[in-house]
Amino acid sequence: MSKVYNVGILGATGTVGQRFVQLLEDHPQFEITALAASDRSVGKPYAEACAWKLAGEMPEKVREIVVQPIEPPLDCDIIFSSLPSTVARETEEKFARAGFPVISNSSSFRMEEDVPLLIPEINHSHLQLIDLQREKRGFDKGFIVTNPNCAVVSFAPPLAALHRRFSIESVFVTTLQAISGAGYPGVSAFDISDNVLPYIAGEEPKVETESQKILGELNNGVIEKADFTVSAQCFRVSVLDGHTASVRVKFKQTSTLEGVMEAMTEFPSLDLYSSPKPFIKVCDEPSRPQPRLDRNNGNGMTITVGRLFPDNIYDYRFVALSHNTVRGAAGSAILNAELLIDKRLI
Amino acid sequence: MSKVYNVGILGATGTVGQRFVQLLEDHPQFEITALAASDRSVGKPYAEACAWKLAGEMPEKVREIVVQPIEPPLDCDIIFSSLPSTVARETEEKFARAGFPVISNSSSFRMEEDVPLLIPEINHSHLQLIDLQREKRGFDKGFIVTNPNCAVVSFAPPLAALHRRFSIESVFVTTLQAISGAGYPGVSAFDISDNVLPYIAGEEPKVETESQKILGELNNGVIEKADFTVSAQCFRVSVLDGHTASVRVKFKQTSTLEGVMEAMTEFPSLDLYSSPKPFIKVCDEPSRPQPRLDRNNGNGMTITVGRLFPDNIYDYRFVALSHNTVRGAAGSAILNAELLIDKRLI
Amino acid sequence: MSKVYNVGILGATGTVGQRFVQLLEDHPQFEITALAASDRSVGKPYAEACAWKLAGEMPEKVREIVVQPIEPPLDCDIIFSSLPSTVARETEEKFARAGFPVISNSSSFRMEEDVPLLIPEINHSHLQLIDLQREKRGFDKGFIVTNPNCAVVSFAPPLAALHRRFSIESVFVTTLQAISGAGYPGVSAFDISDNVLPYIAGEEPKVETESQKILGELNNGVIEKADFTVSAQCFRVSVLDGHTASVRVKFKQTSTLEGVMEAMTEFPSLDLYSSPKPFIKVCDEPSRPQPRLDRNNGNGMTITVGRLFPDNIYDYRFVALSHNTVRGAAGSAILNAELLIDKRLI
Amino acid sequence: MSKVYNVGILGATGTVGQRFVQLLEDHPQFEITALAASDRSVGKPYAEACAWKLAGEMPEKVREIVVQPIEPPLDCDIIFSSLPSTVARETEEKFARAGFPVISNSSSFRMEEDVPLLIPEINHSHLQLIDLQREKRGFDKGFIVTNPNCAVVSFAPPLAALHRRFSIESVFVTTLQAISGAGYPGVSAFDISDNVLPYIAGEEPKVETESQKILGELNNGVIEKADFTVSAQCFRVSVLDGHTASVRVKFKQTSTLEGVMEAMTEFPSLDLYSSPKPFIKVCDEPSRPQPRLDRNNGNGMTITVGRLFPDNIYDYRFVALSHNTVRGAAGSAILNAELLIDKRLI
Repeated sequence: MSKVYNVGILGATGTVGQRFVQLLEDHPQFEITALAASDRSVGKPYAEACAWKLAGEMPEKVREIVVQPIEPPLDCDIIFSSLPSTVARETEEKFARAGFPVISNSSSFRMEEDVPLLIPEINHSHLQLIDLQREKRGFDKGFIVTNPNCAVVSFAPPLAALHRRFSIESVFVTTLQAISGAGYPGVSAFDISDNVLPYIAGEEPKVETESQKILGELNNGVIEKADFTVSAQCFRVSVLDGHTASVRVKFKQTSTLEGVMEAMTEFPSLDLYSSPKPFIKVCDEPSRPQPRLDRNNGNGMTITVGRLFPDNIYDYRFVALSHNTVRGAAGSAILNAELLIDKRLI
Repeated sequence: MSKVYNVGILGATGTVGQRFVQLLEDHPQFEITALAASDRSVGKPYAEACAWKLAGEMPEKVREIVVQPIEPPLDCDIIFSSLPSTVARETEEKFARAGFPVISNSSSFRMEEDVPLLIPEINHSHLQLIDLQREKRGFDKGFIVTNPNCAVVSFAPPLAALHRRFSIESVFVTTLQAISGAGYPGVSAFDISDNVLPYIAGEEPKVETESQKILGELNNGVIEKADFTVSAQCFRVSVLDGHTASVRVKFKQTSTLEGVMEAMTEFPSLDLYSSPKPFIKVCDEPSRPQPRLDRNNGNGMTITVGRLFPDNIYDYRFVALSHNTVRGAAGSAILNAELLIDKRLI
Repeated sequence: MSKVYNVGILGATGTVGQRFVQLLEDHPQFEITALAASDRSVGKPYAEACAWKLAGEMPEKVREIVVQPIEPPLDCDIIFSSLPSTVARETEEKFARAGFPVISNSSSFRMEEDVPLLIPEINHSHLQLIDLQREKRGFDKGFIVTNPNCAVVSFAPPLAALHRRFSIESVFVTTLQAISGAGYPGVSAFDISDNVLPYIAGEEPKVETESQKILGELNNGVIEKADFTVSAQCFRVSVLDGHTASVRVKFKQTSTLEGVMEAMTEFPSLDLYSSPKPFIKVCDEPSRPQPRLDRNNGNGMTITVGRLFPDNIYDYRFVALSHNTVRGAAGSAILNAELLIDKRLI
Repeated sequence: MSKVYNVGILGATGTVGQRFVQLLEDHPQFEITALAASDRSVGKPYAEACAWKLAGEMPEKVREIVVQPIEPPLDCDIIFSSLPSTVARETEEKFARAGFPVISNSSSFRMEEDVPLLIPEINHSHLQLIDLQREKRGFDKGFIVTNPNCAVVSFAPPLAALHRRFSIESVFVTTLQAISGAGYPGVSAFDISDNVLPYIAGEEPKVETESQKILGELNNGVIEKADFTVSAQCFRVSVLDGHTASVRVKFKQTSTLEGVMEAMTEFPSLDLYSSPKPFIKVCDEPSRPQPRLDRNNGNGMTITVGRLFPDNIYDYRFVALSHNTVRGAAGSAILNAELLIDKRLI
């Protein structure tokens, strides 16, 4: 029987905070003991502070937990943070300095040299940065790890599979992102009904830079970013959950369609509690993946790929999909925590 | 005062057929005198045969027109055809052979060597093919001209503007297409609600081949296709009208952002009744173009471009939008008819 | 040629404010000379202060108007107010006291005894309250008139038609209201996508009380409310514009289906610029009215009724629809202004 | 350990057929051994014949089952039928005559005097009709039982709870029905996007008549229908799953709000495998029930009620919701089968 860790959630009343609560409900390794949110919520039981927006009911065991301020210390072993990036930087650092492992879904530290940007199946070796980070920032026991932007998560796994075999040179990605990615209240219904929004503030630069770090090699305490270029155009579409990425990829090495498919389907998953089987699922049906039908594959943790064909300019084209608030946010952070425990870093 | 031509519509009860009826209601050059549709509708007044699906009411003057079989002759000077491609080939040729100018929205003849594939602002010189076509097919007075696929229309105009100045080498386009593009009943609400469909049957090949013909040069009766490659991924999204195209373009010649913008905004419109001013509108606002807000620019005939930026792999990226059942279908065909009259070919 | 009045709009950057701007663009009797909005916007040209959310472009002639604070005086003859009810009460009274005719779309004064709650076709005799209002409140030249809640406007006109002929006893109404009724940003896309909301804050009491005042008789300076009861349940549905009302009505007098239909179709419109013809349109088609197809009937000013049948508990049932931001808001206020001019009260 | 029955599904490739397959996947009492569908599908493995439209993957164990014609006999103990009503009458009778218990979701036999129209929690005593039915129709071992129209299921349970305590006199119901209720392809996206449809063919009469039979008393082999009147207006709204009913109810007896609430919350569920706990859930939150958040309560088998208030014309008003393809179709039929086994009628 595995040890149970107490966890605290920063930003517990938001949509990603709610996903954390939902995904942790029956988790064998974690028990929610602290919920922290903004001043408006502090002092209220979670059931009262939080307007629950997910299908199904708020889990019974968190209803009575009184919401606390977003300040260390909290009565827990691990911090999950889904704070908005405006406040994340200062607050997360405070918690790390106070000795907490901070597993962050925010963008603040993702591109910092000494902070792992994790997709456990791809780059768990980057965890070695934690020692460096502690030293550099003067943390004692605490540290910060991050998971990628929700749109990046949809296509970085197939890129990882392909990069190892065929060495990627460049990638065009066009994303069709779900409204839940904007948080709550997020996108106005008046803006998105019968419409497409061709702009998501700050998104394209994140999508263009994070995957090279994720696929980078750690050498002598430094992540050497993967040497390829990404061009991103990001759209918001009228879908509740599930980011779709339309991808063309050019390799430095020769490849075959079979090899490409094999690289994806055989990319190994891990043996952690939340690891999906498979990690990357490749569909044959011409009209898949679709967000509504495929976002919950592998309990929302599988990356689903389809429409994989040779491209007539680049080497291949495909469509990739992931659940943006599970694999793209709370689920990824939980998987990171499982990885840290497995590697005895917590 | 301009002469008024009698026109007949093939496929008059479908969604594009209804757009023809709507757009022709107050047109100074055309008078609807014949409506033809499938057997089910034949013999009924249009008001009874057609389940009107457009906002606003069915125009009064067509309500009593009795629907006729889709067979020549019809009592009119010009034929507008919005037949499904399965029946278009044979039927349109029959009408042309019977002496009618056939202005077709169908895909059947678009890529035929002797058939103009027209965007009047771009390639009206291709009308010279008509003589050749008559000769080759043994048509006497009749002929066939076509307008492009509705998705192609959204990005071919900016490509035309750029190709003339900077000579395009290759283009990646990802389309987010409206449900009206599938006709009626078309897309099931059960399929598209809270969803994106990554596949539109037969669409990607059309999008990859039509623009080279449109931008081609007519030399000695042969269209030399423009020498660039297009890679297309096509999606259906939950939007009623308005196809959005996400585009990256690579030039053979050097360029500047100013030059690119100028090439688009200064690309001339024509002086025909349905010609929009401007032909191509370039937006500055970061979150435009949007289908719901921009599809009716220029009465649905303007191409709206936005998010024009240098790309980090190709030369430029931008987003282009057009109204798929106006500029992308009925409106284009009507503009073609106006052009043919202007050029004294009708 | 009619005199042109200068008008000012309070709350000019909101969605109803934008509708005012749009509807007044080519209005022969009004010229926008003042735009007032909250502090954030003050001092900026309207083009910069306002994120234009309506289809089509912001009218050229308002783009350069500098937004002013919501304080009297403003350089205009007439005030249109679309202020939120929280600030409307105090501000609108200030403008009236400063001598301005205030034509309000807010709920603050609707049920005040001395304030007309107008649907011009129904109760223009209530304008006599203005004298009383001036006396009671010590206004000199200024005054306040209001238009009804946007949901009430969809079914009050058919009720008026029926009440005059058959004397209504009671009414059950269930509304399916559009998202634009909640203003901007208003309803979160995350709440309404693939969903129905069974609650609109404060709406049911308004819907249950306003129609009796509208259909009331003015006797000796007092409106005697119409003697019937309304029961309302109000829902928000995923529609951009157009409130639908499902209605059952019970009469005190006997009636026939023909009489009921005639009462509605023959209810007279007025001869004002924005008066639609007809005022109430009754459809035969079994699946009408529909918001997307019928909300723009009569330029958004017609009330469309359908599915009129004998009910098996009450006398009749029907479905009524109106455009909630035109007939239900800005269009109604403009019609009220036209009425006031026609009655020489401005 | 309970006995496992082999079941066959008629109409297995349709949306309700797919729900049967999904809900039966892990059911301890049933094993799918026969799948029957129209000619197009006959002879193909289910995986090939059926375009799976539900979230999640097609269950592994049905993929290889070869689809058979809709003709008795099939290799199974029980027939679940989700045939369209046009073919259901003849076919279901054939299966019953051939000795099969037919548990039908179709409307064909619902109102027949000798056929139980079951909601097990409400009227399992009606099962006594089966003997009568066999005698009357000359069935040997076979018989037919039905479940109600999907819209009726959303409000009949609260009516049952109230009728027993307060004796209902009349009911106004307005339904907001999901698109999945129309089957597949069902509603065109072009019709329902940004829209509400005020008409569902044949629906209002069903909604007005079925609940009296369901709540009727069986006396001497005859169901005496419950003595109240229902008035129904039915709308289609843009929701995937979950029918919402807006209800006002008038009692013959006096009541209190507490009594009404108690009647609903204390209405007993059963102890069958698919019985939800509670049967009827009453919400306090002002903006519930909502289809997306509440349709899966009790695995889609709970009826969720909210906005329960005294009405100002009738006694009470409330909003009721159920999952139309689970409790309103396949789930109800499965519950009926569980009931029949429990009562040793299978």
